[in-house]
Amino acid sequence: MTGADSGLLAPTWAGTPVAGETDDEAWLRAMVDVEAALARAQARLGIVPDSAAKAISAVSSSQLDVVQLAADSRGAANPVVAFVPALMKLVPPEVAEYVHRGSTSQDILDSAAMLVVQRVRSLVLADLRRCADALARLAVDHRSTLIAGRTLTQHAVPTTFGLKAAGWLTLVLDAIERLEALVLPAELAGAAGTLAAYVEYGRLAGVGGGVELIGPFAEELGLAEPVGPWHTARTPILDVGHALQFVAGALGKIAVDVQVLSRTEIGEVAEPAADGRGASSAMPQKRNPVLATLIVTAARQVPAQVSVLAASMVAEDERPGGAWHAEWQTLREALRLVGGAAFTAAELLAGLEVFPERMAANLALTGGAIVSERLNVALAPVLGKAAAKKVLAEAAREAAANGTSLRAALAGRIEVELPLDELLDPARYLGDAAALVDRVLARYHN
Amino acid sequence: MTGADSGLLAPTWAGTPVAGETDDEAWLRAMVDVEAALARAQARLGIVPDSAAKAISAVSSSQLDVVQLAADSRGAANPVVAFVPALMKLVPPEVAEYVHRGSTSQDILDSAAMLVVQRVRSLVLADLRRCADALARLAVDHRSTLIAGRTLTQHAVPTTFGLKAAGWLTLVLDAIERLEALVLPAELAGAAGTLAAYVEYGRLAGVGGGVELIGPFAEELGLAEPVGPWHTARTPILDVGHALQFVAGALGKIAVDVQVLSRTEIGEVAEPAADGRGASSAMPQKRNPVLATLIVTAARQVPAQVSVLAASMVAEDERPGGAWHAEWQTLREALRLVGGAAFTAAELLAGLEVFPERMAANLALTGGAIVSERLNVALAPVLGKAAAKKVLAEAAREAAANGTSLRAALAGRIEVELPLDELLDPARYLGDAAALVDRVLARYHN
Amino acid sequence: MTGADSGLLAPTWAGTPVAGETDDEAWLRAMVDVEAALARAQARLGIVPDSAAKAISAVSSSQLDVVQLAADSRGAANPVVAFVPALMKLVPPEVAEYVHRGSTSQDILDSAAMLVVQRVRSLVLADLRRCADALARLAVDHRSTLIAGRTLTQHAVPTTFGLKAAGWLTLVLDAIERLEALVLPAELAGAAGTLAAYVEYGRLAGVGGGVELIGPFAEELGLAEPVGPWHTARTPILDVGHALQFVAGALGKIAVDVQVLSRTEIGEVAEPAADGRGASSAMPQKRNPVLATLIVTAARQVPAQVSVLAASMVAEDERPGGAWHAEWQTLREALRLVGGAAFTAAELLAGLEVFPERMAANLALTGGAIVSERLNVALAPVLGKAAAKKVLAEAAREAAANGTSLRAALAGRIEVELPLDELLDPARYLGDAAALVDRVLARYHN
Amino acid sequence: MTGADSGLLAPTWAGTPVAGETDDEAWLRAMVDVEAALARAQARLGIVPDSAAKAISAVSSSQLDVVQLAADSRGAANPVVAFVPALMKLVPPEVAEYVHRGSTSQDILDSAAMLVVQRVRSLVLADLRRCADALARLAVDHRSTLIAGRTLTQHAVPTTFGLKAAGWLTLVLDAIERLEALVLPAELAGAAGTLAAYVEYGRLAGVGGGVELIGPFAEELGLAEPVGPWHTARTPILDVGHALQFVAGALGKIAVDVQVLSRTEIGEVAEPAADGRGASSAMPQKRNPVLATLIVTAARQVPAQVSVLAASMVAEDERPGGAWHAEWQTLREALRLVGGAAFTAAELLAGLEVFPERMAANLALTGGAIVSERLNVALAPVLGKAAAKKVLAEAAREAAANGTSLRAALAGRIEVELPLDELLDPARYLGDAAALVDRVLARYHN
Repeated sequence: MTGADSGLLAPTWAGTPVAGETDDEAWLRAMVDVEAALARAQARLGIVPDSAAKAISAVSSSQLDVVQLAADSRGAANPVVAFVPALMKLVPPEVAEYVHRGSTSQDILDSAAMLVVQRVRSLVLADLRRCADALARLAVDHRSTLIAGRTLTQHAVPTTFGLKAAGWLTLVLDAIERLEALVLPAELAGAAGTLAAYVEYGRLAGVGGGVELIGPFAEELGLAEPVGPWHTARTPILDVGHALQFVAGALGKIAVDVQVLSRTEIGEVAEPAADGRGASSAMPQKRNPVLATLIVTAARQVPAQVSVLAASMVAEDERPGGAWHAEWQTLREALRLVGGAAFTAAELLAGLEVFPERMAANLALTGGAIVSERLNVALAPVLGKAAAKKVLAEAAREAAANGTSLRAALAGRIEVELPLDELLDPARYLGDAAALVDRVLARYHN
Repeated sequence: MTGADSGLLAPTWAGTPVAGETDDEAWLRAMVDVEAALARAQARLGIVPDSAAKAISAVSSSQLDVVQLAADSRGAANPVVAFVPALMKLVPPEVAEYVHRGSTSQDILDSAAMLVVQRVRSLVLADLRRCADALARLAVDHRSTLIAGRTLTQHAVPTTFGLKAAGWLTLVLDAIERLEALVLPAELAGAAGTLAAYVEYGRLAGVGGGVELIGPFAEELGLAEPVGPWHTARTPILDVGHALQFVAGALGKIAVDVQVLSRTEIGEVAEPAADGRGASSAMPQKRNPVLATLIVTAARQVPAQVSVLAASMVAEDERPGGAWHAEWQTLREALRLVGGAAFTAAELLAGLEVFPERMAANLALTGGAIVSERLNVALAPVLGKAAAKKVLAEAAREAAANGTSLRAALAGRIEVELPLDELLDPARYLGDAAALVDRVLARYHN
Repeated sequence: MTGADSGLLAPTWAGTPVAGETDDEAWLRAMVDVEAALARAQARLGIVPDSAAKAISAVSSSQLDVVQLAADSRGAANPVVAFVPALMKLVPPEVAEYVHRGSTSQDILDSAAMLVVQRVRSLVLADLRRCADALARLAVDHRSTLIAGRTLTQHAVPTTFGLKAAGWLTLVLDAIERLEALVLPAELAGAAGTLAAYVEYGRLAGVGGGVELIGPFAEELGLAEPVGPWHTARTPILDVGHALQFVAGALGKIAVDVQVLSRTEIGEVAEPAADGRGASSAMPQKRNPVLATLIVTAARQVPAQVSVLAASMVAEDERPGGAWHAEWQTLREALRLVGGAAFTAAELLAGLEVFPERMAANLALTGGAIVSERLNVALAPVLGKAAAKKVLAEAAREAAANGTSLRAALAGRIEVELPLDELLDPARYLGDAAALVDRVLARYHN
Repeated sequence: MTGADSGLLAPTWAGTPVAGETDDEAWLRAMVDVEAALARAQARLGIVPDSAAKAISAVSSSQLDVVQLAADSRGAANPVVAFVPALMKLVPPEVAEYVHRGSTSQDILDSAAMLVVQRVRSLVLADLRRCADALARLAVDHRSTLIAGRTLTQHAVPTTFGLKAAGWLTLVLDAIERLEALVLPAELAGAAGTLAAYVEYGRLAGVGGGVELIGPFAEELGLAEPVGPWHTARTPILDVGHALQFVAGALGKIAVDVQVLSRTEIGEVAEPAADGRGASSAMPQKRNPVLATLIVTAARQVPAQVSVLAASMVAEDERPGGAWHAEWQTLREALRLVGGAAFTAAELLAGLEVFPERMAANLALTGGAIVSERLNVALAPVLGKAAAKKVLAEAAREAAANGTSLRAALAGRIEVELPLDELLDPARYLGDAAALVDRVLARYHN
């Protein structure tokens, strides 16, 4: 009855670095760190002896029995109530009374959650920066690589693969900004947000141990100092959820494009080859876009987890009976999935293979129809807007039906002289694609 | 970097029986069971030697390294591709070639998922039946126990606790029906749904090994025989999701009522006391409704998981690149949460303490206003509908403002003679509460 | 400040029949129908004069000012409280007192919701049956039409378009079954579920007007008779939500396949052409898969609406302060989206254009690699399973890299004699595709 | 078949100002505004005659037939394709060709969406500022008003209503910040993001009409200038969704607290009375917390809508076939619900009635147990931490069981002398509640 889950059903993160920063052991580690930081902060104020703070800070979470603690967490519907006496047993008897002094479960778990978030954020940011670098390179290298712009699954007008990469880069830069902007505060509030027991212990020591403790505690944790309690003002949690959801969506967009472009019939990009990756259990020839799939599947799950966090904002009283509790596992799942997705995206983008010749071949598939928007612009002043549109649509349909080129189909329909060679050349209908790439690259370089 | 999760953040299921039926090891066990059933079914058709089927059936999942397999699952974005060679190594060399014969990852994982669902369903049904028994007892015992009916948080009209319990029972019976009605099919389809490789191996053995294999395979697994492939016709998965979502919602409704009724100011029910349960880390007097909280938190999470399953219906091609993959962890989470919630609900309802005297005291709080609907009916023919409503509203407001009884406030306002003693007695304004309880109990006894 | 929404942002249902069955006017119509049915049922029991029941039944919802009622609904957080006096004004003065006799807002609105659902269900079922007919034809017509089976975006093994259509048909049949199985009960419960005021009015008339009223009321509405109150036992609502979610997912799967298959590079199917449909505002040549897009967009929204319904199961007390209220608009949106999607799917499938020659051409793209699974089966006994897989993977990679056929790449690698012509013919590697089509068609014909 | 929806099922926003800023007419108005701004911006560059820009700017959306346009939107799966020719008919014939010059549906609709968001944001911000003012007053006025702090539905330790109001204020200030921080960019990208047709029309006029147009266009709209196209880089949409979701959650938290505190048994606050508000159709005495209910129901729906926006981030190609389309109605619903919730919250908070005497009476309900945390701190040094906790828990249980005070129950259990009068006085166990209120007020005043 252990319930252990090592990622067998979650290959997006299984075995990646984020796994070790989000598992039960990582949360326990953070909980120990929080208790130790509390003791050190109280020691700074004279409420707890330095020696006690040191002893508590010396505990390692590996000394705790995580499976037992998990089972015991049912007694209070949270893991802290069972954790505190277990922690007390790991310090010298005379130190035990200084453990968790004046504290409450939610202060420990909320602060621990922020620590876990902070650690995962570092991993994700590093991976996103790798993604950005790879994308910037792709944008530069393929500034002039023609590719069909596709809308509603159909060829629309030509664009460049560089602009496509620049669009992906935009999302990654946005994701980095949102993660970096996150404020991760410590939680210090006491049973109902008044800091009363902290104050009481301060009084026993003849000092202020309430609001005076917030700053030092946050400092010891390397977290931000909150203005007030956030037991039921869940701004930090939802902000984290939103940032994670953004990252998941941004990477999901890139991954779904990679999937489309690597379809057998399209074949314009391929995932970096690696021994055994993309293998099928039955079809030896297949090279599946597994990295993109790992990312897409994460992007499909994260919004669900975040919707739980959003609903948990509606947290009644000074501590709710269920809303808070629903945050823990969903936050962890979101962190894991995003961490795994970012790790995977970095690998995918660093080694993405690009096939400009396939892009060119596909671009030619519609026999020139892909630039009919341009012809439309050129013909409108001559034939009138509606007539131009009609002629072009008919010509495009005829060309498609007969398998001829748009040029041939147009020949019999318009009498005016037009520079068709130029008008029908996709490379000369790229608008300001290059300038747009440059705008995005300028942002990247800042 | 193990990522192991033993339920530290999920006290709803941590340490409960469902944990052991949904963890990675349980999924591996089911995967082994599926490979063994496939070999036995193929042996029945003469495609695989009996001895090979026996050897495969003798493998225990505990021989596999789940952490390694989890990490290796990234190579193909699913755990089966790494699992098959690992399984092959656990059988005699001459048997290896009969492992996974003609099969494909999705056949194994889909069938394994159905096995896991089936095992969890048994647990949940047993717990729900315990809930139903307890609720039927409560409905009988409190058939005449008065309690305030509450709507939009306000006292509305009197009802009975028995009818309340009957309402809960209705939901539990509905939940049982929906779980029991689930059809759990095996999956046998082959790489793209044509059974081609199974047929091919049959041909080598001179027998039909395609559609002929479906029935025996399902039989060996104790699962239903599907009409056709469901790789991308995800009816079984969404049906399971819907049933789980129903159970979660049904139990969530009961639990949120228990939370309301056990509020300090209301105090009409209490959770069964148990040593250490409901404890706070700082407030020794507290007896928190932790069981209800464990259920409510599950009910808050399951719909999110199920929304992922619903979105996964939109699965492109013969196997999608992400939609299928998003089902695994979300399905597991939903199973665990529902399993834990049902286990918890059985405990909660079996021992629920009911305090009829608190119900009576609360009923009296509004000084008779709780039966003003009845007065309304009685006064309407006398004063007219609108006037009756107005008089009553004014009297109710005055009584509330002055802290007097509704009776006194009415005295000066109506001139007709009315049997106020009877009209103001909540016990005589219960409508058909008792008959409604009986209707529900009759359904329960069927 | 009207807030009127006619579907400008919801082309899936704008202007389709479901629009008129789900708009505010349709809900008002249903509310009037419910009040009339209540009066008639009470007349059958002798509680209300026949003439009054007739007068109430003669009211048309078009006499009501829907915009005003919408604004007034804020006063009680539901539309019924304002609706009842407005309805009273539309009957002769002496009839007014018989309107809404003994009733409560939720009885009216819940019953009206079931009426609306019932009306939408008829539309959806008719459209789904049209879909099923079209799909059965496609399955028959294309029983032997070869197409590439695709998994994770890559060609896997050959299949038939008939089997693909049969898979779609399976989903549509499942959807029909789930819609047909829905039980839609009337709601009759009174303010807190005891039927007290109904009983009271019965008593005034000397008859039983509580549980005795349930059957006649349901009969008058053409709805099922409930066992008991479901004000906070939301089984009927969630069952409807689940059925709608199933339909949306089933149609979404079909639509996303149509989108993939109609990609410019794939071109294996096309939506039925219609003047002006699929037009782009700027690119005259485009023929976008707009019908599929209208369906896909619905499938993306319905799960979100249904997740609200699921969360609303957790409805505290005898009537909750928010959970019930969240059902109305989300249920309507789900009904509209599913209604529009089914209407659209019927049109899409009835006229779907299929291009077998493009399917064949695409099948040939991988130069035989698409049947490497078969070669694998054939080679395994000769070379051993692992060696066979390795040889094939290398040959496939070489063929892909050099643009040669798999046959050529294999030539130098295997020494045994193999019937390669047969082994490499996709048409001879269809497994039991035809038999599977027949199994699905047999179900359809039942 | 109009489908018109005026809010009958959505009393949160029906008849409020946001209704008029989000209805179909408001979206059409914004679309007209975007086309006019485009013409003016192009006129500034010399691409369109000033007179044409003026003529287009003179069109009023009220001249358009919204119902017809909604129905016609099915032709292209978006409303713009039908809208453009309808708009052309409203300008002089010679101006028609300048309408929508070089543009594409998504540029118009995305920019219009941002305009709608901007208009709604102004309304919401004004309402949130009203909320903040009211909450600041409550925080000041009730800085010392004692109230029971409640956790998991049970009395925990004392707090002040002022601190509770400060917690609500924190959320409202956070909400304001997040709304204010939103960057709302214009969209100008062209069919596939290259600005090609804009450039082409510029070339006809001998000027740059691509990237050069972005700034002037954004300026004319009063929107931000984007770095590049965001057709499938949906940062602006998801950012808006996140801000809306935050507001909904923040207000939902306040509303659910109001609901709890106005429960019949608690009665510590009441919604502002208004004629007819909170009325029940059957129970004249009731005064339901309808404003809070209107807010809670919005908070239950918004996360679902936003989860659709989040999923739409995964938008394949240069314009996706479904993801974009799923944003429109869900964004509108979220805007409406949040707009209505903010309007409602401003009304609720401005007139909230607070009953300090009920707070005091409830605080006394547990006979002193509410300060047992403090006793715990005081006893721990004397008896040891574990013993103190045990003694207190036993005393609390005995007091609750016998209905005596905690003081009495303690008497026989501890032998040391303690200043029980002080220790048992809730007013002396408020920790740093006042200082925390001040910290939040300081933020408010900044």
